[in-house]
Amino acid sequence: MNSFTPVSSVGERELIRRLSRIFYQDSNRDVLIGPGKDDCAVLSAGDGECIVVTTDMLHRTTDFPQQMSGWQIGWMSAAVNLSDIAAMGANPCGILAAIGLQSDCDVGFVEEIARGLHACAASCGTSVIGGDIDTHDELTITGTAVGKVSEDRLLTRKGAKPGDMVCVTGYAGSAGAALYALENNIETSESLLKKLFEPIPRVRESLSLADSGAVTSMMDTSDGIAISLYDLADASDVGFIIYEDRLPLQDDLKQLIHEPERLLDYSLYSGGDFELLFTLSPEKVSDATKTCDFTIIGKVAEKDMGITLERPQANNLSISRKGYLQLKDTD
Amino acid sequence: MNSFTPVSSVGERELIRRLSRIFYQDSNRDVLIGPGKDDCAVLSAGDGECIVVTTDMLHRTTDFPQQMSGWQIGWMSAAVNLSDIAAMGANPCGILAAIGLQSDCDVGFVEEIARGLHACAASCGTSVIGGDIDTHDELTITGTAVGKVSEDRLLTRKGAKPGDMVCVTGYAGSAGAALYALENNIETSESLLKKLFEPIPRVRESLSLADSGAVTSMMDTSDGIAISLYDLADASDVGFIIYEDRLPLQDDLKQLIHEPERLLDYSLYSGGDFELLFTLSPEKVSDATKTCDFTIIGKVAEKDMGITLERPQANNLSISRKGYLQLKDTD
Repeated sequence: MNSFTPVSSVGERELIRRLSRIFYQDSNRDVLIGPGKDDCAVLSAGDGECIVVTTDMLHRTTDFPQQMSGWQIGWMSAAVNLSDIAAMGANPCGILAAIGLQSDCDVGFVEEIARGLHACAASCGTSVIGGDIDTHDELTITGTAVGKVSEDRLLTRKGAKPGDMVCVTGYAGSAGAALYALENNIETSESLLKKLFEPIPRVRESLSLADSGAVTSMMDTSDGIAISLYDLADASDVGFIIYEDRLPLQDDLKQLIHEPERLLDYSLYSGGDFELLFTLSPEKVSDATKTCDFTIIGKVAEKDMGITLERPQANNLSISRKGYLQLKDTD
Repeated sequence: MNSFTPVSSVGERELIRRLSRIFYQDSNRDVLIGPGKDDCAVLSAGDGECIVVTTDMLHRTTDFPQQMSGWQIGWMSAAVNLSDIAAMGANPCGILAAIGLQSDCDVGFVEEIARGLHACAASCGTSVIGGDIDTHDELTITGTAVGKVSEDRLLTRKGAKPGDMVCVTGYAGSAGAALYALENNIETSESLLKKLFEPIPRVRESLSLADSGAVTSMMDTSDGIAISLYDLADASDVGFIIYEDRLPLQDDLKQLIHEPERLLDYSLYSGGDFELLFTLSPEKVSDATKTCDFTIIGKVAEKDMGITLERPQANNLSISRKGYLQLKDTD
């Protein structure tokens, strides 16, 4: 007899693991990287070329705060997927958007969503190439992004080696702090809100970094830096030392949140920043620094070091395996 | 000042046209066929190779009758997308599934959905390569399928010429009639219900037909034969003559619905069959008939003929531009 187990008791990552086992019983010779392994699935396109593809379902109540405009909802729906394409070092070549709309929704609002989708795609040198329209009682957008990359330039979560530098683009914790401000009616800067509502997929940075040949592993920080470090650690079989005083915090964030411990929580454990987290060969760091802006926040260690935070004014601590996840907060 | 126009007053196809205009302001050199034009979007993969990609959002209340099992829900979610890949003459190389689940949903039920997705993918020689899990108040599945095809084998809606034969695989109207039986608590055969719950994507037939070199245009009949004929007619700039007595009707359908006019309505205007509708060069028909089973149901005419039904025991009539559509029944 089967027992009843609600998905909420299992957590998103465990559920993905279980489903990936079901999906993996066959041998699809096109697949280079399958479900649950990286930011995108990777298919062979022949001649050393790869197709990368990713999909993300977003909902009005859980993903689009009421303050977001239609344009921002569209932008976000494209951005979350383009960020995954960037995380593989790939060139985006198209986006699909399946949109579930309430039947009494204004056509003008839908067109605003479309303009936001288009603007984000265009900012990354691509466009919306297809989709689906459906009626639904809650606004739901599933974006899918497709990219191309040659196999020898593909960047994955696997490849970090002890001694490599750990780096991140942009700022940490901005989107999470902006959400906190919104939910608690605390006034904050436009700049911080923009980090939450209009995240910039780091496609340009990713392509430049791939050009440098310096990157040993990469993923995006959509669920927060901490959980992303664990994903890199699992895939690369390494540990990390992260320097607290190197975490890149936006001034507006420091004005919003003063307590050091809370600031640390936001920078490590809140999601929505869609920055690139990556590791660099130490001998090629200077090649990488010429290509785009990023911050070195730590170094790759042996696996048995775990994931440790070095603090200048406190004892070192172990970074927890937690972050922003659907279904359940931690696993 | 903007006026308020609910999407329900516009219709799915008009809305897709409006959004496609927004999506088309830029020039994405990778795109061979863009939004709203065919069963899939088509991207160039270089060296004469194409990537085809399609997405479809399905919901519990509108797309999965209560009688469907989890396995069938999964099968259906893969099938609707694989049917679009088949419609382009392409080889499927992977499926992604973004699944929105109620948080109190049983993990066993989700695993059944996954097994159905996997089984349908495997039946078409491919697999589920990725996806997303999300919480949602209504079960929602957005499937995405990716396929490959060389540019010279790509089958599109454009290319039918007067004199070509019009053909369809399988039966017409079975899924629509099964839905009618379900909704009205009329007992019907397992075979008819299976047409509704477990449609078979015609991937094998499509690849065989593409091999024959006989196909001049193709699409699937997901929204019904009538609306699909209009789509082919619009893309190819032709008309059609369809013979009523050639429409392939399943015996179980004729046992369920006796009145000839209603039988005709189901065979032309009901959706969910996911068969291939295609046109053949007359001189190559015999090459095509060797490859798989299908029925010749009419011929391609000049555009000014419109889309006409020839009836042996009644006056000819003009087939209407209507079918199974979300948001609004006709447009």
